[in-house]
Amino acid sequence: MKLQEITDQLGLTTLSNKEIVGLNTLNDAQSNEISFLENKKYVNDLKTTKAGAVFVKEEFASLVPASTVALISPEPYLMLAYASKLFAPNFVETAGKEPSIGKNCTIMPNVYIGKNSVIGDNCTLMSGVFIADNVHIGHNTILYPNVTIYRDCIVGNDCIFHSGTVIGSDGFGFAHTKEGKYIKIYQNGNVVIGNDVEIGSNTSIDRAAFKSTIIGNGVRIDNLVHIAHNCVLKDGCILTGQVGLSGSTTLHEYVIMGGQSATAGHLEIAPFTTIAARGGVTKTIAEPKKQWAGFPLMEHRIWLKLQAKIAQLLK
Amino acid sequence: MKLQEITDQLGLTTLSNKEIVGLNTLNDAQSNEISFLENKKYVNDLKTTKAGAVFVKEEFASLVPASTVALISPEPYLMLAYASKLFAPNFVETAGKEPSIGKNCTIMPNVYIGKNSVIGDNCTLMSGVFIADNVHIGHNTILYPNVTIYRDCIVGNDCIFHSGTVIGSDGFGFAHTKEGKYIKIYQNGNVVIGNDVEIGSNTSIDRAAFKSTIIGNGVRIDNLVHIAHNCVLKDGCILTGQVGLSGSTTLHEYVIMGGQSATAGHLEIAPFTTIAARGGVTKTIAEPKKQWAGFPLMEHRIWLKLQAKIAQLLK
Amino acid sequence: MKLQEITDQLGLTTLSNKEIVGLNTLNDAQSNEISFLENKKYVNDLKTTKAGAVFVKEEFASLVPASTVALISPEPYLMLAYASKLFAPNFVETAGKEPSIGKNCTIMPNVYIGKNSVIGDNCTLMSGVFIADNVHIGHNTILYPNVTIYRDCIVGNDCIFHSGTVIGSDGFGFAHTKEGKYIKIYQNGNVVIGNDVEIGSNTSIDRAAFKSTIIGNGVRIDNLVHIAHNCVLKDGCILTGQVGLSGSTTLHEYVIMGGQSATAGHLEIAPFTTIAARGGVTKTIAEPKKQWAGFPLMEHRIWLKLQAKIAQLLK
Repeated sequence: MKLQEITDQLGLTTLSNKEIVGLNTLNDAQSNEISFLENKKYVNDLKTTKAGAVFVKEEFASLVPASTVALISPEPYLMLAYASKLFAPNFVETAGKEPSIGKNCTIMPNVYIGKNSVIGDNCTLMSGVFIADNVHIGHNTILYPNVTIYRDCIVGNDCIFHSGTVIGSDGFGFAHTKEGKYIKIYQNGNVVIGNDVEIGSNTSIDRAAFKSTIIGNGVRIDNLVHIAHNCVLKDGCILTGQVGLSGSTTLHEYVIMGGQSATAGHLEIAPFTTIAARGGVTKTIAEPKKQWAGFPLMEHRIWLKLQAKIAQLLK
Repeated sequence: MKLQEITDQLGLTTLSNKEIVGLNTLNDAQSNEISFLENKKYVNDLKTTKAGAVFVKEEFASLVPASTVALISPEPYLMLAYASKLFAPNFVETAGKEPSIGKNCTIMPNVYIGKNSVIGDNCTLMSGVFIADNVHIGHNTILYPNVTIYRDCIVGNDCIFHSGTVIGSDGFGFAHTKEGKYIKIYQNGNVVIGNDVEIGSNTSIDRAAFKSTIIGNGVRIDNLVHIAHNCVLKDGCILTGQVGLSGSTTLHEYVIMGGQSATAGHLEIAPFTTIAARGGVTKTIAEPKKQWAGFPLMEHRIWLKLQAKIAQLLK
Repeated sequence: MKLQEITDQLGLTTLSNKEIVGLNTLNDAQSNEISFLENKKYVNDLKTTKAGAVFVKEEFASLVPASTVALISPEPYLMLAYASKLFAPNFVETAGKEPSIGKNCTIMPNVYIGKNSVIGDNCTLMSGVFIADNVHIGHNTILYPNVTIYRDCIVGNDCIFHSGTVIGSDGFGFAHTKEGKYIKIYQNGNVVIGNDVEIGSNTSIDRAAFKSTIIGNGVRIDNLVHIAHNCVLKDGCILTGQVGLSGSTTLHEYVIMGGQSATAGHLEIAPFTTIAARGGVTKTIAEPKKQWAGFPLMEHRIWLKLQAKIAQLLK
């Protein structure tokens, strides 16, 4: 889509006629993508962005690199939201190739597989499974009844997803107008899941706003877990029942999160960290191999000491 | 149904032959409805009720208004439970009009739409969607795979519900007998959802015991959220992942609830209130535009101060 | 399967040619089952086990009873995991009897019922319901749309399960190799649910690793509840929204758990106990009829006192 076509629809103006293929963050955007700066905190990323264009407030226009078109607006994030709809794919494709099913698969009745989707060998898809368009699933993967995989998602080999689990539902993202109307940020990314991943029942993993929510190899996820958009779980992570990860949480290798624990998002947790049940992580944990607990979070041994102190209050 | 038919089935007696069409609270009941008083706290509501009849203990019989029939029982709530079954609609209608589908809808394979249901124009219903009987859905609404909408529910225009979400499952209500058997209170109300509402995946919104659970216009609800019977969310509310609302919670306009926060039910939260992640609301919040946190709940700035004090205990 | 066939596949050796039919705990195993000792804590159970064979470390071999074969391995739990796969039933049976459906049942379109399964009289199975192989369901039971019941599970009479609920998904169990690869412990048990049980929407109840996860008569379970493998809920228990039970939790009769409360697993809660909302149970509660709150858990009256003390910190 030409940049002018986009700006015309948003009530902005530009002289540039660049070809634009999508949206992305300041750090990740390429010369054929648009980005945005809403939060002053990321102003350094603006200075070094390779984006083809950026939505920015007038006050930051002078910081936009020479090769990037500044799209001036008092509401950059709102502009992003409007633009996201222009790049949203169809809800359901009607054209495209019929799905490709590998050898020795068991496809039970009432399974739907969308256009251009590919299922590997020796897979089992039980009734009520929905595979949307352009999904790729590896070999030996088992999908229990009523699992839904949204369009464009990728699942590896040797995975097991239990009933009711949803892969690729839209991340929770929206801008708002001055009048208080919420404008959806279309979640044009996907979910990419590695090999040997088992996911329990009724778990939700949201697709990315841009790029991918990523679940590494060998990850184990229990029931009723919430994983928001753009999370990254590196290999070997374990999430037990009812864990909740806010958007853009990165768990490094072999992080273990206890039942009902959660993260505040936009943070990282170092390898081999253990978060006890109910722990609430609000800041990046940089040092690996430690055990944490509580909300606010503290080292588990400190939390135990604190509980003893609190118990003394009752004396 | 005649009142005598009802009392006959409950082992009570009455001389009145009023026509009764359902059950309701003391405040809301009309002259063709039965109500009840179990909890002394609501005795003032008894004095002013317009109900056609009420289940009451003998000690409160004298307070029943003249135009209301007092149905004396030592167990009014249990009587209500038994009576609720008499007014429960069929689980599945076999008679009725074939559903009406608007123009330009995409109805994928394996979608079920019940009797007397109406789907507006330009809707997308993906595979595994279940629309029960007598459901009304507006225009431009998108239901992802395996969404269930129970009978009698109403959904507006421009809504998006993600996979696995359930609208209108029974509220969690029951009386118990002296022998400890639980008697279901049939949830004969419904859920009414406004326009421009987006709901994430695997969220549950229960139908009302009487009348409606209400979700206002523009509301945004994330994944794995629990909304119990008779909640009311006014326009613009935002519930993030894994929030839990107990029964009869009213959120006024633009309330924001952080991840895993919850309410105790039978309370109201003032407009533009923000509840931080994990906040637990146990009392009505009357003053608008404040930020709260913690469990027990306190103002967010106090909560921060408290955490500092608690940290000092460790020194 | 002969014991030698099993040990051959695990790289162990034995002279015994016993017939082995499955795996079990030290306490429950019979002479045709294999058990294991990984955790020293259970060494007394080893001394009295009736298992046909046990995976044990060399240091405990001398404590294995005479009639039990000691299968020496430095990684007994890992051996158990590998062995569990040998006893796992098929994901989907292709042979077997066609399902038996009782009188006056309503089976809506797009319902799947597996081989050897039996549905009682007067049941309603709505669209998208999946009943796997060898499931038994009693009379008058209602399954709302998109309920999944995994193979070998048993459900009683007069039950109501709401949409999206999953019965019998795999418990969250795995051993790990020295290289950090997780090896699934196949969950070869089932779920057994009594009579008059109502379960809300999007709830997950996992099948047992060995034997059964058990839900007693008259139990009431709300929405989005997580019940891990090998839990036992005795008659009359009530679990409200978003409760989470870790593995091998036993709730005795009429335990009530408030919203978002949870247990740490491998513990028991005495009859008529009430756990307040958000309560976190980490130890067995032996005394019946008490009320508890908080995390760490304490008596509810103490918790109230503690909150008052904490409030004083702010003065």
